[in-house]
Amino acid sequence: MLQPIDSPYLVPFDGSFRVDSVAQDKPPRAPGEDALEDALRERVERLGDLQERLYAANSYAVLLVFQAMDAAGKDGTIRALLTGVNPAGCQVSSFKAPSAEELDHDFLWRTARKLPERGRIGVFNRSYYEEVLVVRVHPELLEAQNLPGPPDLETLWRDRYEAIRSHEAHLARSGVLVLKFWLNVSRDEQKRRFLSRIDEPDKNWKFSGRDVEERQHWDAYMEAYEQALNETSRPGAPWFAIPADDKDWMRLQVADIVVRSLEAVDPQPPALPDDELARLGEYRARLVGEP
Amino acid sequence: MLQPIDSPYLVPFDGSFRVDSVAQDKPPRAPGEDALEDALRERVERLGDLQERLYAANSYAVLLVFQAMDAAGKDGTIRALLTGVNPAGCQVSSFKAPSAEELDHDFLWRTARKLPERGRIGVFNRSYYEEVLVVRVHPELLEAQNLPGPPDLETLWRDRYEAIRSHEAHLARSGVLVLKFWLNVSRDEQKRRFLSRIDEPDKNWKFSGRDVEERQHWDAYMEAYEQALNETSRPGAPWFAIPADDKDWMRLQVADIVVRSLEAVDPQPPALPDDELARLGEYRARLVGEP
Repeated sequence: MLQPIDSPYLVPFDGSFRVDSVAQDKPPRAPGEDALEDALRERVERLGDLQERLYAANSYAVLLVFQAMDAAGKDGTIRALLTGVNPAGCQVSSFKAPSAEELDHDFLWRTARKLPERGRIGVFNRSYYEEVLVVRVHPELLEAQNLPGPPDLETLWRDRYEAIRSHEAHLARSGVLVLKFWLNVSRDEQKRRFLSRIDEPDKNWKFSGRDVEERQHWDAYMEAYEQALNETSRPGAPWFAIPADDKDWMRLQVADIVVRSLEAVDPQPPALPDDELARLGEYRARLVGEP
Repeated sequence: MLQPIDSPYLVPFDGSFRVDSVAQDKPPRAPGEDALEDALRERVERLGDLQERLYAANSYAVLLVFQAMDAAGKDGTIRALLTGVNPAGCQVSSFKAPSAEELDHDFLWRTARKLPERGRIGVFNRSYYEEVLVVRVHPELLEAQNLPGPPDLETLWRDRYEAIRSHEAHLARSGVLVLKFWLNVSRDEQKRRFLSRIDEPDKNWKFSGRDVEERQHWDAYMEAYEQALNETSRPGAPWFAIPADDKDWMRLQVADIVVRSLEAVDPQPPALPDDELARLGEYRARLVGEP
């Protein structure tokens, strides 16, 4: 199984992660905007090359999971990271509130159907982690899930963490490089972004009153993130907690982690099977000798 | 319903299309390689912008269908056209030989599941047209399809064309901009490309002996394409027969048709509902007044 790369943002595997001790803004001596954008462009270009090799090798897949509070910048990060990658090798799935059909299945069903094929990069914009985040903060959502018996909540969350760990360990053993990103935006920065969605008419369509209501539960969300990340950051499926108050810094960190992880995989284009290789000369003669 | 844009490569709707009277190479006075690549880059950039508007509008979808003989350049065209578009708004599906599960359904089932959602660009690399192309050339493939009764072939093909026309007319009425491209490569140029796959070791992995066998049926394929395009090029789902012997010319023509068609759609970002708009001030005050 692949070992995760080194990163200051890697969530440790021993349960010692604390949301109130990790950075939400870029480091004081971070490069300026232009330098960050240049560095991002360079990573994105390398990602394009690596994706072509991944696709030709058709042996590993990549799964990038993004979770965050509203307005942390998931969509923009996905766009910045993957615009420049051939969409034929890339599948982005957004998971919103589950449908009735989805609720009638176990909580991993709807995302499992969207897992990337070998050779592809799959992106989950939100994921099964919603089931231990928004549902944990709003346990009344469980009522719609038709679970057998009245749920014992303590057991339920423990079982869900265990289900996620097992699922991801299986993916990792099957050749899926799983990388999970929590875009860690501060409550103040979220407020600024909501206000700009209100104040700038061409951003109005992104605004939803519900997002403002949800801010009331900030502390409960932070608690849910802390526990979920501690319970599920493992060598085969590590979490990275990325400071998200500066978008340029955030995007570069994500791109850098994805590129370095793929470089560690180092996908190689396949060789022709020996018997096909032996027959190349025969096919050549046939083509050349056509009437 | 949207009307197709003007193009010298549009397949007419009256059945008058003849494969042996359309160009396979670029016109004699076409611009040079650099100029074609610059023009392509410009179209791709516009496509990126149009896709963002399409996504925000969330009302139309785009379906691009690519069909061609082997080595005509489908993969490369899809890559050139869409690398630069946000993969979150773009879904590429490749259809190879159908699986047992797919064969146990009607022939439109497997592609229907991959139709793009509103706001997205869907790309079919091969499609249900295989059912009136490769299956028409090799009717023995029908045996695996478990159709009721011994098929009367004449009726079968007529029914399939009718099924495709109805399906695409329904999509067009439902807000899907359907654009279909036949990348029309010459038999000689295909031979050159196969030889280079044989002669250049890093292209070996793309070579398959089966593709050479399939060249024997070239004339039958051309007949199948001619009939399929005549039977299914309609205002709501036009075919374009693109000369494919020069890759730069081909890619630019495809990009140009896609961009001009989307400009005709002119997707507009949605306005907030009036009641949400009225409440923006209230949410603003609440955010600003937070403790």
